[in-house]
Amino acid sequence: MTGTNAGPVYRFSSCMHILPPSFLDELFRVSAVPGIISFAGGLPDASLFDLQGIRQATEAVFDEHGRAALQYTTTDGYRPLREIIARRYYTRLGLLVSADEIQIVNGSQQALDLMAKILTSPGDSILIERPGYLGAIEAFSFYSPVFSPVPPDDEGPDPDYLANIIRTEDPVFFYGIPNSQNPSGCTWSDMRRREVADILSGTDCLLYEDDAFGELFFDGKPRQPVMKHLPDQVMMSGSFSKVVAPGLRIGWIRAPRPVLAAFNRAKQAADLHSNLFSQMVLTEYMTRNNPDEKIRAMGREYGERCRLMTDLIEDMLPDTVGHTNPVGGMFLMLTLPDSMHSMEIFEKGIQEGVAVMPGVPFYVDDGGCRTIRLNFSASSKEQIEAGMSRLARVFRDMA
Amino acid sequence: MTGTNAGPVYRFSSCMHILPPSFLDELFRVSAVPGIISFAGGLPDASLFDLQGIRQATEAVFDEHGRAALQYTTTDGYRPLREIIARRYYTRLGLLVSADEIQIVNGSQQALDLMAKILTSPGDSILIERPGYLGAIEAFSFYSPVFSPVPPDDEGPDPDYLANIIRTEDPVFFYGIPNSQNPSGCTWSDMRRREVADILSGTDCLLYEDDAFGELFFDGKPRQPVMKHLPDQVMMSGSFSKVVAPGLRIGWIRAPRPVLAAFNRAKQAADLHSNLFSQMVLTEYMTRNNPDEKIRAMGREYGERCRLMTDLIEDMLPDTVGHTNPVGGMFLMLTLPDSMHSMEIFEKGIQEGVAVMPGVPFYVDDGGCRTIRLNFSASSKEQIEAGMSRLARVFRDMA
Repeated sequence: MTGTNAGPVYRFSSCMHILPPSFLDELFRVSAVPGIISFAGGLPDASLFDLQGIRQATEAVFDEHGRAALQYTTTDGYRPLREIIARRYYTRLGLLVSADEIQIVNGSQQALDLMAKILTSPGDSILIERPGYLGAIEAFSFYSPVFSPVPPDDEGPDPDYLANIIRTEDPVFFYGIPNSQNPSGCTWSDMRRREVADILSGTDCLLYEDDAFGELFFDGKPRQPVMKHLPDQVMMSGSFSKVVAPGLRIGWIRAPRPVLAAFNRAKQAADLHSNLFSQMVLTEYMTRNNPDEKIRAMGREYGERCRLMTDLIEDMLPDTVGHTNPVGGMFLMLTLPDSMHSMEIFEKGIQEGVAVMPGVPFYVDDGGCRTIRLNFSASSKEQIEAGMSRLARVFRDMA
Repeated sequence: MTGTNAGPVYRFSSCMHILPPSFLDELFRVSAVPGIISFAGGLPDASLFDLQGIRQATEAVFDEHGRAALQYTTTDGYRPLREIIARRYYTRLGLLVSADEIQIVNGSQQALDLMAKILTSPGDSILIERPGYLGAIEAFSFYSPVFSPVPPDDEGPDPDYLANIIRTEDPVFFYGIPNSQNPSGCTWSDMRRREVADILSGTDCLLYEDDAFGELFFDGKPRQPVMKHLPDQVMMSGSFSKVVAPGLRIGWIRAPRPVLAAFNRAKQAADLHSNLFSQMVLTEYMTRNNPDEKIRAMGREYGERCRLMTDLIEDMLPDTVGHTNPVGGMFLMLTLPDSMHSMEIFEKGIQEGVAVMPGVPFYVDDGGCRTIRLNFSASSKEQIEAGMSRLARVFRDMA
């Protein structure tokens, strides 16, 4: 290059200019330092994946479907898989759901993107729990909404606050994770689920009920979704990523039919359809194995890791540090005293060889300085013990 | 339901209200009638997929990677696959492309969606060939652009028209398929590729060079992409869907780095990453087999089917019906006399047991009444003969 040609000016869409800076890239880069014990990520434990069962399922797909498994397919998804998903809503939760109400997506992250795409015009209000799931904030942000955070109490989203903000903001939907929320690890009470349904009923505010963790309760017992009380007004997403394998990128959305029709159109434009081979492998896997027992074992294992982590928090961290008490999922949340900042814990943790997730990116307003998310699913018990020792050192040094 | 509760009002985003009606659903439903010979779709011939090679590749992935193939991965994609793609730009085309310039997507359809997402604000101008690829029109439409069609001559996009409309419309990008375009089957001349690069150079209009068919020239010889002349201003997409297997849903985009960085962010928000298992299978497949010979054989076979179809068009259809002369790809285009309408041919064809694709949805202005797209890749030679006989009957009945 001679310098005479400055090259093209790259112009980006208006949404790109108002996106918040991506926190995750920096975090992932820092956390990738060798020797670091990471409680910062959100991975399931790969050692719990049923490799043999999945491998046998791929064999069966080749034997039974041959080249048909490698061809294009319909946008809505492989029907036998949608029927399995629908049937599991009945066997697990007693809910009558039809395969026609279900659309397959590339992990439930894609449902976040496409649902915002069909429902949100720039400037529309979206309600989200405070703190809220970072992946949802990232996906929704591309559609330039105005986020209104809904604070929780011990039972779930504050009902008076929710009722009031629906009246004043006229939001298009409320996004929440009633089961083992990311990042807090909290679960809405049954009573609160009914209250939320009652508050939404009669309004034009939909509920986006993200159920990524509903099969990972430590006690193996399912909780009734809000969808049960308000099926015409609730979109509910689920995923095989946490309970079978995330690398297959298969999740789903169950939605009221007018919403699903628009969603299907957006899915077709976005990538025609999800990976057919993976859909068939999951169909074989869910049919041939006894996945429920394996999934319950996974939940029990995560429960032991969570209890170990909370015990160590109470034993080793200052009394001024609080924590949530998850009954399922993969995360818990620390709360810090006013004298500490989550970013400082993060930075000092890296120096001590332990990565934590500062609360900051989970807040759509100015929050998260006093909260930290810890993941307990991706670390062995030995790693949890070692990592908590390192974290305790960070807190000791700051005291 | 007692009728006292009318249910929620579903509100959709502004882009949903201005989407053109989806033509494809209707077409697919009609074309699915049993016994129909379909030239309307766009499938590769599954019988040409290398089932055994792909199956062996999946075995190798399980043997070598185990559970790691089933875990979450990075957004940019599996690096060994990106290196294979980069290397093939060199071995096939003599172009130096780095794996760092490549992002894996779910088939090149996803690149259409995400590129429009990061580049297009509502009301921005997008240039597209006339006729243009329907899947691109569908994907881009969600971002509410203003389409400006660029008419072709025998060599490719009309250069004077292109230069002028870039001046007057200030488009964010020009979307084109230089190799065996969908729907026309036409290929830009080498000279026109240089001219288009010259016209774009020095402007802020990017080129989106869709290369879905570049490996399917009937003579097996690659053509030099426009990207060669203008790498800083061209995004080029490619796909394994046509040459290995579409059900794996793996394509890629090569873009200038500032564009790729924004694209990566959109990909992460859209679905975190593409299917890791499929990426690893393709990596094994492309490494272990001699895919180039198989791909060339596929191109030769499609060439024979194309020649059969054009011969039958000339033998059996009225002289007033013209056709393009593809040198690659999966489609050709018929041009009709003023007395005929493509929708009428479509409807009468269904009655005769042959499905064709009317040109209408490929035009962003009022066009397509006198053009029909025919697919020759998905039908055997016997099906092409039988289908063309049926189509000839349609034309005879209309004369």
